[in-house]
Amino acid sequence: MLTEHTAAPDVVETGFRSAAITCFIACLGLPPSAIGEPQTLTASAQRMEQRITALSAFGANPEGGVSRVAFSEFDLAGREYIKTLMREAGLDVRVDTAANIIGRRDGADPRLPVIMFGSHIDSVPGGGNYDGDVGVIGAIEVAQLLHEHGVSTRHPLEIVSFTDEEGGLIGSQAMTGRQGTDALDVVSHGGKTVRDGIRTVGGDPDRLEQARRKPGDLKAFVELHIEQGAILHEDGIDIGVVEGIVGIRWWDVVIDGIANHAGTTPMNRRRDALVSAAELALAVNRVATTLTGRQVATVGRIRAEPGAPNVIPGRVVMSLEIRDLDAEKIELVYRTIVAEANSIAKARQTPISFAEIDVALAPAPTDERMRRIIAESAVSLGLTYKTMPSGAGHDAQDMTHIAPTGMIFVPSVDGISHSPKEYTSPMDMANGANVLLRTVLAIDRGALD
Amino acid sequence: MLTEHTAAPDVVETGFRSAAITCFIACLGLPPSAIGEPQTLTASAQRMEQRITALSAFGANPEGGVSRVAFSEFDLAGREYIKTLMREAGLDVRVDTAANIIGRRDGADPRLPVIMFGSHIDSVPGGGNYDGDVGVIGAIEVAQLLHEHGVSTRHPLEIVSFTDEEGGLIGSQAMTGRQGTDALDVVSHGGKTVRDGIRTVGGDPDRLEQARRKPGDLKAFVELHIEQGAILHEDGIDIGVVEGIVGIRWWDVVIDGIANHAGTTPMNRRRDALVSAAELALAVNRVATTLTGRQVATVGRIRAEPGAPNVIPGRVVMSLEIRDLDAEKIELVYRTIVAEANSIAKARQTPISFAEIDVALAPAPTDERMRRIIAESAVSLGLTYKTMPSGAGHDAQDMTHIAPTGMIFVPSVDGISHSPKEYTSPMDMANGANVLLRTVLAIDRGALD
Repeated sequence: MLTEHTAAPDVVETGFRSAAITCFIACLGLPPSAIGEPQTLTASAQRMEQRITALSAFGANPEGGVSRVAFSEFDLAGREYIKTLMREAGLDVRVDTAANIIGRRDGADPRLPVIMFGSHIDSVPGGGNYDGDVGVIGAIEVAQLLHEHGVSTRHPLEIVSFTDEEGGLIGSQAMTGRQGTDALDVVSHGGKTVRDGIRTVGGDPDRLEQARRKPGDLKAFVELHIEQGAILHEDGIDIGVVEGIVGIRWWDVVIDGIANHAGTTPMNRRRDALVSAAELALAVNRVATTLTGRQVATVGRIRAEPGAPNVIPGRVVMSLEIRDLDAEKIELVYRTIVAEANSIAKARQTPISFAEIDVALAPAPTDERMRRIIAESAVSLGLTYKTMPSGAGHDAQDMTHIAPTGMIFVPSVDGISHSPKEYTSPMDMANGANVLLRTVLAIDRGALD
Repeated sequence: MLTEHTAAPDVVETGFRSAAITCFIACLGLPPSAIGEPQTLTASAQRMEQRITALSAFGANPEGGVSRVAFSEFDLAGREYIKTLMREAGLDVRVDTAANIIGRRDGADPRLPVIMFGSHIDSVPGGGNYDGDVGVIGAIEVAQLLHEHGVSTRHPLEIVSFTDEEGGLIGSQAMTGRQGTDALDVVSHGGKTVRDGIRTVGGDPDRLEQARRKPGDLKAFVELHIEQGAILHEDGIDIGVVEGIVGIRWWDVVIDGIANHAGTTPMNRRRDALVSAAELALAVNRVATTLTGRQVATVGRIRAEPGAPNVIPGRVVMSLEIRDLDAEKIELVYRTIVAEANSIAKARQTPISFAEIDVALAPAPTDERMRRIIAESAVSLGLTYKTMPSGAGHDAQDMTHIAPTGMIFVPSVDGISHSPKEYTSPMDMANGANVLLRTVLAIDRGALD
């Protein structure tokens, strides 16, 4: 099933399945030779699928997914498996002090900086078999193809499997020097502190600074990942070219009414906090939906107090989350929601207040040149692509701070993720690996210069 | 402060403070002598207040209210205090097998049925000093006035303090033979089963049937109680003539959407259960508010699942409670809400289901003649009154099944109840006792015949 895609000529301007797709080929201005060679290198969907299946044994849960949380015995076993695959692909394997697994392949010119690519293999509790795993197995596939075909690159290549992505991008935070002071004391999914966990899997939390890469150390960073959303799958698109990882802000919203007896208080004498909260939840949805752009806003949690069926709610506490690629857009959405809240509060005499929770993540745009290279690589393979934000967080967002960074998405069936039902087809995984391969080779040949 | 009211002539047709008040005097058709005599008997606001204060010592909580839950040591002490007051009022005190305290005063004609009046002295946890207490202290005040002035009645009088009202009308359910088979095994507020509790305070749960009164045993039942709502207080009305205790039905409402990643799922691809739930909560409020009548409908509890700020709610469970004096009206409100829910479910592709919780209480209308007697008693004292439903449950609702029943409400300041902030002024308590006295005397003199 893969052949019809990988056998396509270098540059394809037909076969687009969506009018929304923009082809950047014409404006790239790269020498044709920089893209798509050698054409004979083709990822093996079968091998990738077999390795994904083998990896899924470590921490397999009864529902068919994995619970391979960072620092668990399953994580440890999975990491050993990854090291074995790396060595099989001819890589020199080491573990840095943040416990990131790094498989290195020297380049022809020792003065050139490293091209790094990879993802992570730890999962959330009750997770699936593709989140992160596809990026690591795909990166190893790229290295193995180069190894098997004796293709050398000018730049050194490093394939990375980051530590504890699901616990807060621990490995990439260390690599980019972005770790907060308390991060090591946080208890991770598996019950260990990050500090103890890093030690368990071969790192050295007391010398984390040695894992750090400075701006200039890396030529580029590329991450292949499943979309974790339904856009590519529903629209029948092969590849997502990630514009960036969205910024996130959270608030606790408190709506104050007057708690009262639900039997003895007539409808026209109520100050029902939940009625106001309901209006506000609809306003949040309406604002995010009707403003132009791709911002999202969500009320995911709501609690009425005292919370008895026979008491009019005197207070409602609910969450508000807003995400967008543009920090100013997030602020605009927030301000618009606050204006709506003020109207509701006044009309219903139920004060509404917003308290921001300190989890703000700034938007992390990818490198524009990297997007073009990824898009052109997809096109060269006859694949359709769509530029899109990543609504979820990834190690790549840290890496944007120290290197030109790109991200390649492949479809998630029905958009399901963080669930045993997570699925990406072998063909889509191989498509992603092939785009990754061509992207890495294009960078090696000067596409970023 | 009380004098200006109690010194008023028998029948007053002036001084009404609300145009909404209807005077039933003209249509009562009772002999004038049946109402309002002897005029010299007047409840002592000071004595009632002093007794309320004394009673509040048993189970006093730091906030100024009481936590005198049924069967606790405080309940036991409070009950002893009530028995003492009853004996001081010349009553023969006994405790029936349901542990109801009954103070009896024989009438002149031993063949006539009993006129019973009273309420309860147990409280909710963290309760106030007036809910129930005013009715018991008021009933004792009436007995004491008759005793002190040597007034005899034709009918025997029984003053009752019911057992564990707040735990489910335990005493009145036993007296009316309405106790469910499992009621004795329920663990009451204080941590004891009702069975053990009844034994603790002097009843015999194995012989509950001996507490039962059959239809015809009682000439009438009257309960004086605080409104527990804000209508009388806000409108400046002295007395509420209760039309009945509203029926109550509860549902669990489940709204099913699709849980998804709040970052990767665009606004237009969501099936957010909370957005539909918000629309439904507003519909509940709108339906109850816009239909004619005094029905109330409340969403008091709401929970989104999985309930994380970064996950679109896949399911929302919320409560729905509807109350009205008319069972058909409750059904109409429910049907209208279901129709709205069906529209929301269809438009947003989020199925909505209603599961009724088995706590339904049928509406319990009071006796129409009793309402007239209470209204006329109020008017004879120069007091303003308003006919109104009771949105809260009371022992009187059980008693409607075996006797002509009436209820007298006095104002609750700001409508606050089940709270240490509960308050009713001494004047309002005394007004209630005076209306109770005149009502009992009117019944004794044939107003029901």
